[in-house]
Amino acid sequence: MTTALILLAAGKGTRMNSDLPKVLHHVAQAPMLVHAMRSGQALAPDHTIIIAGHGAEKVSAAAQAFDASAKVVLQTEQLGTAHAVAQAAPALADYAGDALVLYGDTPLIQPETLEKMAAARANHDVVVLGFEAADPGRYGRLVMDGDSLERIVEFKDASEQERAIRLCNSGVVMVSAPLLFDLIAAVGNDNANAEYYLTDIIGIARARGLSATAVTCDESETLGVNSRTELAQAEAAFQARARAAALELGITLPAPETVHFAFDTHVGRDTVIDQNVVFGPGVTIESGVHIRAFCHLEGCHVSRGAVVGPYARLRPGAELAEDTRVGNFVEIKNAVIGEGSKVNHLSYVGDAEIGTESNIGAGTITCNYDGVMKHQTRIGNRVFIGSNTMLVAPVSLGDEAMTASGSVITEDVDTGGLAIARARQTVKLGMARKLMDMLKAKKAKRDKGVI
Amino acid sequence: MTTALILLAAGKGTRMNSDLPKVLHHVAQAPMLVHAMRSGQALAPDHTIIIAGHGAEKVSAAAQAFDASAKVVLQTEQLGTAHAVAQAAPALADYAGDALVLYGDTPLIQPETLEKMAAARANHDVVVLGFEAADPGRYGRLVMDGDSLERIVEFKDASEQERAIRLCNSGVVMVSAPLLFDLIAAVGNDNANAEYYLTDIIGIARARGLSATAVTCDESETLGVNSRTELAQAEAAFQARARAAALELGITLPAPETVHFAFDTHVGRDTVIDQNVVFGPGVTIESGVHIRAFCHLEGCHVSRGAVVGPYARLRPGAELAEDTRVGNFVEIKNAVIGEGSKVNHLSYVGDAEIGTESNIGAGTITCNYDGVMKHQTRIGNRVFIGSNTMLVAPVSLGDEAMTASGSVITEDVDTGGLAIARARQTVKLGMARKLMDMLKAKKAKRDKGVI
Amino acid sequence: MTTALILLAAGKGTRMNSDLPKVLHHVAQAPMLVHAMRSGQALAPDHTIIIAGHGAEKVSAAAQAFDASAKVVLQTEQLGTAHAVAQAAPALADYAGDALVLYGDTPLIQPETLEKMAAARANHDVVVLGFEAADPGRYGRLVMDGDSLERIVEFKDASEQERAIRLCNSGVVMVSAPLLFDLIAAVGNDNANAEYYLTDIIGIARARGLSATAVTCDESETLGVNSRTELAQAEAAFQARARAAALELGITLPAPETVHFAFDTHVGRDTVIDQNVVFGPGVTIESGVHIRAFCHLEGCHVSRGAVVGPYARLRPGAELAEDTRVGNFVEIKNAVIGEGSKVNHLSYVGDAEIGTESNIGAGTITCNYDGVMKHQTRIGNRVFIGSNTMLVAPVSLGDEAMTASGSVITEDVDTGGLAIARARQTVKLGMARKLMDMLKAKKAKRDKGVI
Repeated sequence: MTTALILLAAGKGTRMNSDLPKVLHHVAQAPMLVHAMRSGQALAPDHTIIIAGHGAEKVSAAAQAFDASAKVVLQTEQLGTAHAVAQAAPALADYAGDALVLYGDTPLIQPETLEKMAAARANHDVVVLGFEAADPGRYGRLVMDGDSLERIVEFKDASEQERAIRLCNSGVVMVSAPLLFDLIAAVGNDNANAEYYLTDIIGIARARGLSATAVTCDESETLGVNSRTELAQAEAAFQARARAAALELGITLPAPETVHFAFDTHVGRDTVIDQNVVFGPGVTIESGVHIRAFCHLEGCHVSRGAVVGPYARLRPGAELAEDTRVGNFVEIKNAVIGEGSKVNHLSYVGDAEIGTESNIGAGTITCNYDGVMKHQTRIGNRVFIGSNTMLVAPVSLGDEAMTASGSVITEDVDTGGLAIARARQTVKLGMARKLMDMLKAKKAKRDKGVI
Repeated sequence: MTTALILLAAGKGTRMNSDLPKVLHHVAQAPMLVHAMRSGQALAPDHTIIIAGHGAEKVSAAAQAFDASAKVVLQTEQLGTAHAVAQAAPALADYAGDALVLYGDTPLIQPETLEKMAAARANHDVVVLGFEAADPGRYGRLVMDGDSLERIVEFKDASEQERAIRLCNSGVVMVSAPLLFDLIAAVGNDNANAEYYLTDIIGIARARGLSATAVTCDESETLGVNSRTELAQAEAAFQARARAAALELGITLPAPETVHFAFDTHVGRDTVIDQNVVFGPGVTIESGVHIRAFCHLEGCHVSRGAVVGPYARLRPGAELAEDTRVGNFVEIKNAVIGEGSKVNHLSYVGDAEIGTESNIGAGTITCNYDGVMKHQTRIGNRVFIGSNTMLVAPVSLGDEAMTASGSVITEDVDTGGLAIARARQTVKLGMARKLMDMLKAKKAKRDKGVI
Repeated sequence: MTTALILLAAGKGTRMNSDLPKVLHHVAQAPMLVHAMRSGQALAPDHTIIIAGHGAEKVSAAAQAFDASAKVVLQTEQLGTAHAVAQAAPALADYAGDALVLYGDTPLIQPETLEKMAAARANHDVVVLGFEAADPGRYGRLVMDGDSLERIVEFKDASEQERAIRLCNSGVVMVSAPLLFDLIAAVGNDNANAEYYLTDIIGIARARGLSATAVTCDESETLGVNSRTELAQAEAAFQARARAAALELGITLPAPETVHFAFDTHVGRDTVIDQNVVFGPGVTIESGVHIRAFCHLEGCHVSRGAVVGPYARLRPGAELAEDTRVGNFVEIKNAVIGEGSKVNHLSYVGDAEIGTESNIGAGTITCNYDGVMKHQTRIGNRVFIGSNTMLVAPVSLGDEAMTASGSVITEDVDTGGLAIARARQTVKLGMARKLMDMLKAKKAKRDKGVI
């Protein structure tokens, strides 16, 4: 079966109280819209149509950054969900496949749920996504007869018996594209808000003798976000799911509630992630890694046997080979750390390649920026970088080279060479005491207002 | 209406198991006593009288640090709440306004609640603060007839019907000052503990034909602290309220439960505060700021468009102008960072002024302390400070100056000047290998016990 | 009474999905097995017998690392708990004392609970540990008659009346060693799994006219771990108990849920532990200490009046004397910091001794590793180490010595001596601007592909 996605993303989100369009607010390090698009990709859609309105330019940019083939259609007036979907009609004019309507502010629907909807389409003209609500409140109720969806009744119109139904309407619907636009054409706006509601297509379809059914998912998947509080709730729901999945995969989390995953974090079995670890996007961690407390990782890869942290920051492009060590107060950016190499303390390694079994001393900095351009540092195998070495890039150090601590390395060092760039020590006997006495006298004068 | 505050702060707090007087334990970075004083300021009080006892000296110092006009009265014996309030009589001898009795161990009462009490005083002689208890337990019950408070009945004296009442007594009371002391004079101590209870004034007032009413607040506001567990509960209640308020104001908190606000934190709309951020007192953050994970801020100001952290520590006196960047493992103290300037990695900037669009390289330190005095560093606009530059204060760098990485700058640098203070690099060919061999041989000897 | 411990630790823990034997997974920084062994030590056991199977070598190593006298017995086939206990028989052949059977995957049983079991042995032949289950589910039920344990009935065999019993079987049992092995010899495996169940000994004992009783403990103590999720639950239960105990002892935790204790952490009264603090094993903190946010401590001692953090990492062997200060982005390892001394910023102090009232400047590093060996740094009293000083060990600085900031100290400094090892500053007027212009021109060429 072939499918087109229609994503409703035009709403302003007044209750967000934000200059940013609602669907661009982040959950688990990605815009909500992108979450919905990612889920939709489970159906390998032929077309992805984004209905944008408020902040359409930003929405468009975010959508196309994720999927360059996504098409953005403008809804200039917001006249209801059916009206929004109708905007996709020209873009899908010649399309005979299915259309799946998703919402840019409903980021947690799972790919598996959409696959179930697609499967249900084999036997029904219209497939609606429903959920058993713990507290159905004012949601629309799905009135079923066996697996046939008879009608959707709004809360205010529901009888006492219908209000007792706990199966509620998520608004997500799947139907063949031509039929969708055909049904929408029949939707009216004779209601309190004078809006065109997508939900009405079910009644119209049933009245025409078409069949409908409901697929159900967990209530948490249908969480819609209209405020920062709900955004935080969506984040919490995402994290709860991600943490449970990680534990199930054989990852140790001593304090799961303190680990914050991104939408695309991959972690291998028998890896231990300690307390207070934050993942940005684009992180893959192999098996048997130890991520210690207070680490912050984004856009990086960590190989088997590595030990990272505590307090390590891995930025985009950090690649840690097997059995590496990156320790406290260390920042790694766009740099490969070779097998068995160590950067244990208080260092900045950026735009660099480090070979195997090298040791980078405390306080080492790759001076990669000259104020205008970034440059590369190359360090070979079994190199010993003394503490507080400044590596002024571009610069290369051969295998088994060494640097004396406190050196500023501006020129390449050959294999096995020892580079020194520091002044000799002199000691002035008794001078420290004299200096202190002088400073104290000066302070006394200053305190008295003499100087 | 004019008001005097009477704050009861004499108790020892035995269950706190502490050398610190109970009311000086902190909630949200301020002593509980100060929270009560702050709430009371909503009524613009003419007088603030603190009734101190245990640790009176420390209590006095804390009270007056917050409000120099607060008057501290000593209660040498602890004979009950009425006796405590009576100690305020001499200080308010000539005062005809209202008196509001608050408690130094009840830090969460909201200003709005006290304003409601003051408003209720227009129609009633005595106003009591009550709360609907989820589990009324052994609290005293407020027996109402319409909006008239008939009496307060202690749990042990209450009938079954009275015990079913869920409106409970907080102990907070407002009444004209002369009447307060008049009523207190009639309170006896004919009870199991031989104490004089402030609550008794309600019965005495009613018996005299005076009117009383109750104002209600949320139960969380009346949380009294008698142990470290309750202190942690008060902190949690404060944080829950502060986080909810922040979300409501249009601030994004992906993980609200990991953000810890201080009593006076101000944050602007569309600011994002990531996971694990701790605010000390005195922080203001403008709109559109991004505070990344693991930041620690106190006494600082962050302007629009700034990005801070992860792992940034802003200490008192840090002022970040618009569009500044302060990155990982950076400490800023008593320093102005000018618009668009960056301090991205592993630096200490203290007692400094940095102009606009300057870049402070990794590992830079302002050497502000000579062992006796602190000195200032001044950096102009568009300055490039090379990595690991030591700026030995007092020192100034003009606009567009540069320092070579690894330099110790002890003298001023003119506009556009390049300062270098480091040794030239020399390389000893093959020496690293020889050195390693030598060290390994030495270690082998040491391991064998030869040396 | 004399006791031998028998610890069942042979299971594979398939649901852990791990290469590590189940009982070696950690709770509160120690293997679960060690938790059980520690609790058992409350009875000062004469023998500790570990029944190992899967990963026996690693299990053996961990057990003996904690208690060198522990004896490990191999269970080559896993035929049930009675069969496992039977493996201990040869090792206890001549032992007439009691045997207590514990489980290596049940880490939270308290010493006090075991002491209660030992006390109950005075009046009963067999003592079983039970717990009142909130949701008894499919646990075996303890059928009591007064304090006599009549029988243990498995859920599937239980009558409706028996299923209503909430007192459940933990599996922990205490009985004289000879009787234990005698009873086990009578256990059969005529059940669905063809396993020998230890629980069956109760029925056999009662049938022989022996007496049995049950001691009860909190349900949380009997939490058994079979998955990473349950491991996280055990950790959470441990932390909840440790946090409550800390508050009770008079320690302030503004956010208890963010403080992670190890199994052996000791903290004194009136110490404040701020948000997000992680304790590794072996930490003792005296009274009146302030541990600020984001600290990570292991194997260290912190004395009265010290202030640590935020962002301080104390590693094994760190000893902080009274009134010391260790500040942000500082790592201390195997080093003594003398009374009143300060290491406030961005430093690494390893393998060092620092005297009293010394000040270690920002960015100081003890260069303790030469690539092969570690060496010591000795710093006297009232020493002033300038910022970014490299102390190349082995090296000693006498009392009241000073170092100039940015110096690499390779030779000893006498008392009161001032050591300098840096180049003089030169300034090239106007050179910074020229350099920038040159770099920009170069970049422009590069951007055009010219170079």
